[in-house]
Amino acid sequence: MKASILSKKSKYARFAIREDDAMAEKLSKTGRKVLKLSGGDPAAYFPTPAYIINPYIKALRNHKTAYARSQGTHELVDAIIGRYKRKYGLTLSDEDVIVTNGVAEAITFINSAMIDDNDKAILFKPYYPQYISSLKTYGGIEILEYYDEKLDWNINTDSLERSLKKIGKHVKNTKYMLLTNPNNPTGTVLDRKVLEEIVDLANEYNIFLISDEVYDELTYNGAKYTSICKLASGIPYMVLNGASKAFDASGFRIGYAIIPGDDNRSIEVKDKLVDYAMVRLSANTPAQYAIAEAMNNVKEHEKAVNRMISSIERSTNSSVDLLEENTFLDVVRPKGAFYIFPRLHMKDLKFRNDKEFVETLLKEERIQTARGSGFGSPNHFRIVSLAPERIMKGAIEKINGFCKRHAR
Amino acid sequence: MKASILSKKSKYARFAIREDDAMAEKLSKTGRKVLKLSGGDPAAYFPTPAYIINPYIKALRNHKTAYARSQGTHELVDAIIGRYKRKYGLTLSDEDVIVTNGVAEAITFINSAMIDDNDKAILFKPYYPQYISSLKTYGGIEILEYYDEKLDWNINTDSLERSLKKIGKHVKNTKYMLLTNPNNPTGTVLDRKVLEEIVDLANEYNIFLISDEVYDELTYNGAKYTSICKLASGIPYMVLNGASKAFDASGFRIGYAIIPGDDNRSIEVKDKLVDYAMVRLSANTPAQYAIAEAMNNVKEHEKAVNRMISSIERSTNSSVDLLEENTFLDVVRPKGAFYIFPRLHMKDLKFRNDKEFVETLLKEERIQTARGSGFGSPNHFRIVSLAPERIMKGAIEKINGFCKRHAR
Repeated sequence: MKASILSKKSKYARFAIREDDAMAEKLSKTGRKVLKLSGGDPAAYFPTPAYIINPYIKALRNHKTAYARSQGTHELVDAIIGRYKRKYGLTLSDEDVIVTNGVAEAITFINSAMIDDNDKAILFKPYYPQYISSLKTYGGIEILEYYDEKLDWNINTDSLERSLKKIGKHVKNTKYMLLTNPNNPTGTVLDRKVLEEIVDLANEYNIFLISDEVYDELTYNGAKYTSICKLASGIPYMVLNGASKAFDASGFRIGYAIIPGDDNRSIEVKDKLVDYAMVRLSANTPAQYAIAEAMNNVKEHEKAVNRMISSIERSTNSSVDLLEENTFLDVVRPKGAFYIFPRLHMKDLKFRNDKEFVETLLKEERIQTARGSGFGSPNHFRIVSLAPERIMKGAIEKINGFCKRHAR
Repeated sequence: MKASILSKKSKYARFAIREDDAMAEKLSKTGRKVLKLSGGDPAAYFPTPAYIINPYIKALRNHKTAYARSQGTHELVDAIIGRYKRKYGLTLSDEDVIVTNGVAEAITFINSAMIDDNDKAILFKPYYPQYISSLKTYGGIEILEYYDEKLDWNINTDSLERSLKKIGKHVKNTKYMLLTNPNNPTGTVLDRKVLEEIVDLANEYNIFLISDEVYDELTYNGAKYTSICKLASGIPYMVLNGASKAFDASGFRIGYAIIPGDDNRSIEVKDKLVDYAMVRLSANTPAQYAIAEAMNNVKEHEKAVNRMISSIERSTNSSVDLLEENTFLDVVRPKGAFYIFPRLHMKDLKFRNDKEFVETLLKEERIQTARGSGFGSPNHFRIVSLAPERIMKGAIEKINGFCKRHAR
């Protein structure tokens, strides 16, 4: 047999969230439409508001269609600087900001910039699938810590510290530790105290800290949100964010990284990310103008975000209420983002694993979710709670009935 | 001294075309504006036409702002299939097409999908800088063949064949051979006979052939253009293209790869590129709708492209006419794209190298070009000939005067 043309590392290029998309599309063509509770895509449920669409149209009319500055248009970079000043009291300068094609591209840049073969990165499971996929396609090795389901998916920092001590000798080539807060797929908002301890550990073990905060505006159920940028001043760190979630503009593909530090590692990383940004020329130009103007339009933005949060809070809580009646699973009530990540009691269900659960649910109930094993946490599945309350309730009732029907 | 946090491979993330952008921006702020003849960016000179802008606005108004299908919207994929049928008589199916964030992202996908450490790829110098940067950040090694300046930058296929014979044992892990036609930075349109011989060699040496044809509509001076897809049927190959050049929509970031074959390697590659596409979710959604509609609007598109070509042809020819009067350089008249790539007689000039030439030209004449060494061809520099004829002539006269002033 002829050898494969593919690289060995390319086998890690996989994305559990979309792997059933082709099947769902096929099913939708042959009968009942599939309800997609698989993609974390606000714009599929909330039309992107006029205060974002109008400046996009204006930018197109004003011929803002050439390649942009690789690091991001000055307008968008300034708007991002303004946002962090306003929201977190953080002072950033121009060179601390890099605009990317979504947070996804920032992750790619980070791994290419930092990871050689066998370099390590600390991830926490359940993780967003791209983190591990990208790390491993660059030859990196994950050190897998975890969000603790028993602590409502917060991090057990004692356990993290014990691990760091034990893996002390590996830590020399441990390039970064990556948090997601609020979390995808668990909807957790990390406690401030947990974050303080993590910042201390990052400092003590000399690890570059990265916090993916793309859901930072989407919290509810009384959550008290803390951005890492309120705590990590003085240590090398980076925050990832973008327009896909709170700006309801997923299809624009506008993300960004901020690296506030002026220590050696922060400067190395920000300079190198500019190189990566140049090599691919720029992110979408008119979308950058749109988000810049929308980000500066604080009043309209807050109105829109609050409307979205109210809807998400209702949908999520009603879904969780119904899931709590389901004896085949356990669920932690989220406080942020728009995901529910129930644990299945697999021994009570006639499925071999979460993959079979999710595929059968798709085929029988025409509801697409995502398997937990794709996030590093088997026996779980992820439900996106962006749909209106009525639709979510109907879907969860179907899921509950489905579990009963497939009881072992 | 503390070790760098950067990966060793990240040193290859460099992009000569934009490396003077920061200096140019600084200079523009302190006096005379810099004339940028450095970026291959049609939309900086030709306002993106209404037949492209209007469907973009329509898509935004119709709420086409969610993540798109990862491989590209069905609308755009269908339009691309239609374009290849109409233009080249090629029959493609849905799964042969992958839409990317510009051709740049396609190159990244290709290298991640195919290249492990020490795998080889055949590139031709002068090359588009991203090819080698991306290859090497994935651990690959370039086998550098060349476009022959003596053959008006065509490829000497006898020489290529001798090289392939000699490097026979390396060729086992030689994953692909990558052409650019029409060429950036030389403006060459490869002869059909040369392409036929290259296809034969790719077949004989069992090498996956990739042709970057993003300038395929932009030919002039009586060029006879041949796409690889007219010749390579039956061997594993891929064509790269996009909206940045002929659709005058560089800032949209819409590129694509087509892989027409149904051989094992073609199928492996197309399946794997879908995985990479999924991991980063999608390209900009409303831009995909815009390009789909514009691509189907053959009449308006041809009118716009013809206008652009006439202007480029005039600008390029007038520039070359004037450059031919300059005894400090030699120049080959281009037949495609919008680049001029003169060879400097360095021994007659008071510069150490092309980098110093380009930097001094920027500082003294406020004209930004790109150094040939960034394309693998020292002692050359790249001039973008997109500006109107009058501006180009003024710039070339300045370049000619500059050379005289710096004669050794």
